[in-house]
Amino acid sequence: MKNILGANDEIAEQNRKMFADNGVVVMNLMGSPGSGKTTLLEKTLACLAGKIKIAVIEGDLFTAKDAERIERTGVEVVQINTAGGCHLDAPMIQKACTSIDLKAIDLLIVENVGNLVCPAEFDIGENFKAVVLSITEGDDKPLKYPLIFKESTAAVLNKIDLLQFTNFDLQSAKEDLTTLHPTIKIFETSCTQGTGLDEWCAWLSKRVEEN
Amino acid sequence: MKNILGANDEIAEQNRKMFADNGVVVMNLMGSPGSGKTTLLEKTLACLAGKIKIAVIEGDLFTAKDAERIERTGVEVVQINTAGGCHLDAPMIQKACTSIDLKAIDLLIVENVGNLVCPAEFDIGENFKAVVLSITEGDDKPLKYPLIFKESTAAVLNKIDLLQFTNFDLQSAKEDLTTLHPTIKIFETSCTQGTGLDEWCAWLSKRVEEN
Repeated sequence: MKNILGANDEIAEQNRKMFADNGVVVMNLMGSPGSGKTTLLEKTLACLAGKIKIAVIEGDLFTAKDAERIERTGVEVVQINTAGGCHLDAPMIQKACTSIDLKAIDLLIVENVGNLVCPAEFDIGENFKAVVLSITEGDDKPLKYPLIFKESTAAVLNKIDLLQFTNFDLQSAKEDLTTLHPTIKIFETSCTQGTGLDEWCAWLSKRVEEN
Repeated sequence: MKNILGANDEIAEQNRKMFADNGVVVMNLMGSPGSGKTTLLEKTLACLAGKIKIAVIEGDLFTAKDAERIERTGVEVVQINTAGGCHLDAPMIQKACTSIDLKAIDLLIVENVGNLVCPAEFDIGENFKAVVLSITEGDDKPLKYPLIFKESTAAVLNKIDLLQFTNFDLQSAKEDLTTLHPTIKIFETSCTQGTGLDEWCAWLSKRVEEN
């Protein structure tokens, strides 16, 4: 395991340099299966269209279902199929980037494999990580899966429109997030209702502008 | 990876023999974080109380949150903390079983780590696997995470009470499940409303009786 991570970290550093040389900000977007990563991405792309030049890398075990959804937004998308693998790693990203014109974009969003455990362990050379947690997953998830929340600069509490149909304690979840990671930026969104997306997109834009 | 799986499979066979020798049926319960595994388990234990003698093994990365919930039902529970590991394996189960009186139970339910990828790859010596998929995760999950559904004897479509608030296509999900695994038994449940639990518990009882 140490060797695998060691080799990964070397390539991650190469990726990071490549992104910096090309002036590209990279976000590693993670979360459970069905937390709403792809829908958040669709809404984000629509919101930032014409303002920020974006490309997307889609990580999936086998299908191209998510990449096809992103392609329909008109944004360039590269599909990585991990053939059953539970996370993306730096070499996969390095290879995928050979087919992206990094000079032509400001922001690269990498949607990782749906998994609240393994993706957090692998540096892909990103500038920052973000995690999507849907309200329907339950408020106990930050403490149960701490690493991904410790590693993430932002946490998006998604499907907030379903809050009233669950026993999710928003206050408690936010406290746990802040205990794990005092500077984490928390967003509350509903991608179907459009709630909270402006704030999220403004924050993302600012990260690109400040680069 | 081959070596790890090889060593795991050997211990899994030892576990399987141990369970058979003691007349215990073992279910490996898997699913995404927040799909409702622990709540389904709580309802199942309540439903089968006094009819079937059950013990539970709870797999979690760090906390004992789920084990504490199960303990409150009065059922014997052993906690396995994987220290960040993304799945349970056969040696962990073998070790946990040293503190369970297998002769005294009919059914051992193992709640795996919340993860739709890795747990499906590791045989723990169970009689059968079951996967919980919540409606709020989306109907595309069977095709996106095929292995876990191919490996599972039963799929529980949980949080069916939230169906009306989502774009989940029940017919399409069931067709995909059956395409992946023609003999898979599909249940539709709502643990908060009590829907479908009788059918699920009856099926589970039958698996124990037939052992």
